[in-house]
Amino acid sequence: MGKSKISMAVVRRLPKYYRYLCELIEKDIKRVSSQELGKLTGFTASQIRQDLNNFGGFGQQGYGYNVTELKNELGKIIGISEIYNSVIIGVGNLGQAITNYRRLGRVGINLIGLFDKNPKVVGLTIGGIKVRDTDELGDFVRENNIKIGIICTPKEGSQETTDILVENGAKGIWNFSPADLKVPSDVVVENVHLTESLFTLSFLLNQSLEDGQ
Amino acid sequence: MGKSKISMAVVRRLPKYYRYLCELIEKDIKRVSSQELGKLTGFTASQIRQDLNNFGGFGQQGYGYNVTELKNELGKIIGISEIYNSVIIGVGNLGQAITNYRRLGRVGINLIGLFDKNPKVVGLTIGGIKVRDTDELGDFVRENNIKIGIICTPKEGSQETTDILVENGAKGIWNFSPADLKVPSDVVVENVHLTESLFTLSFLLNQSLEDGQ
Repeated sequence: MGKSKISMAVVRRLPKYYRYLCELIEKDIKRVSSQELGKLTGFTASQIRQDLNNFGGFGQQGYGYNVTELKNELGKIIGISEIYNSVIIGVGNLGQAITNYRRLGRVGINLIGLFDKNPKVVGLTIGGIKVRDTDELGDFVRENNIKIGIICTPKEGSQETTDILVENGAKGIWNFSPADLKVPSDVVVENVHLTESLFTLSFLLNQSLEDGQ
Repeated sequence: MGKSKISMAVVRRLPKYYRYLCELIEKDIKRVSSQELGKLTGFTASQIRQDLNNFGGFGQQGYGYNVTELKNELGKIIGISEIYNSVIIGVGNLGQAITNYRRLGRVGINLIGLFDKNPKVVGLTIGGIKVRDTDELGDFVRENNIKIGIICTPKEGSQETTDILVENGAKGIWNFSPADLKVPSDVVVENVHLTESLFTLSFLLNQSLEDGQ
């Protein structure tokens, strides 16, 4: 399954399917039709069937999907059962919030290192993990088989941090800094640009308020 | 300018243009071509021209864009100069991080209320703001002309919280809870689904690692 075959639009819908399937399991619901999944997720039934067909047909005509089976298969596709050694760089408010984000473990993030360059923070223990000096990042990443770096630094220095991560073997970057990071083609970056998200909200809100006048 | 005219894809690119224009101003660069903006943002020059044409042609053939002018115009379009009274509901790790997020003020968020239902948290002061009981949310939103509610609660209760916000006059929801919120058509929701973002990273990382084998 080459990554070029699946569009990013489909990739972004998979976690939503997975989340709703988990909710159905919690409610002890055993099977679900594409129509019912459509109502839950807001996508059309035909889009759902088409998306899932990308990975082989899971559904059965007239029966729908077996919830547990589909959830497990999607989980495998998403890579939910993989565990990645990970570090956070930048343990300000946001970095600390991510450190204590209880869902990290559930989605395969094995957080084993925290890094900061602020001497007031280095040496503290947060969420049971000691904060190290960013100078030690490269060695730590290499020696501990770190696959994911979570960047919670300001814009300044985020590219340099990324370079150190990548040079020492990291393959995935979860980027909270307001910068577009450059990485080699075998490294993936997933951005969470909070400021851009707020700008989008602001734009939509302005338009909605104007339309309502 | 009706909101139906501009696609969400364009809307999501505007904040990125705005961010890069701010960086150019910091570097004291006065004018920029669509080609140069393309190199910075990773979009094509023709896409940039097309996007900006949605809002009236800012550029001049052979000259490019005046950086300050374009930044100011985009800022107006995004609504950067608007100030919205806002509240955060749920002041766990994430809510506290958002409370202390220093960029909030710069993007028009006037944070004046924090709410939680945990009695251990109610009454504390975080970032200079007293945490109130969620029972007081409706009255506070109405009496303080709150336009934006920032939801940092767990999935459970996030819809109920949204309903209270909307019933009392909020028009925008910045949603960090892993739920798809239902709102009337004149209310806008911007989601930051961290778990889905991590799933996406995990999926892309798996595919990249498989391809590399």
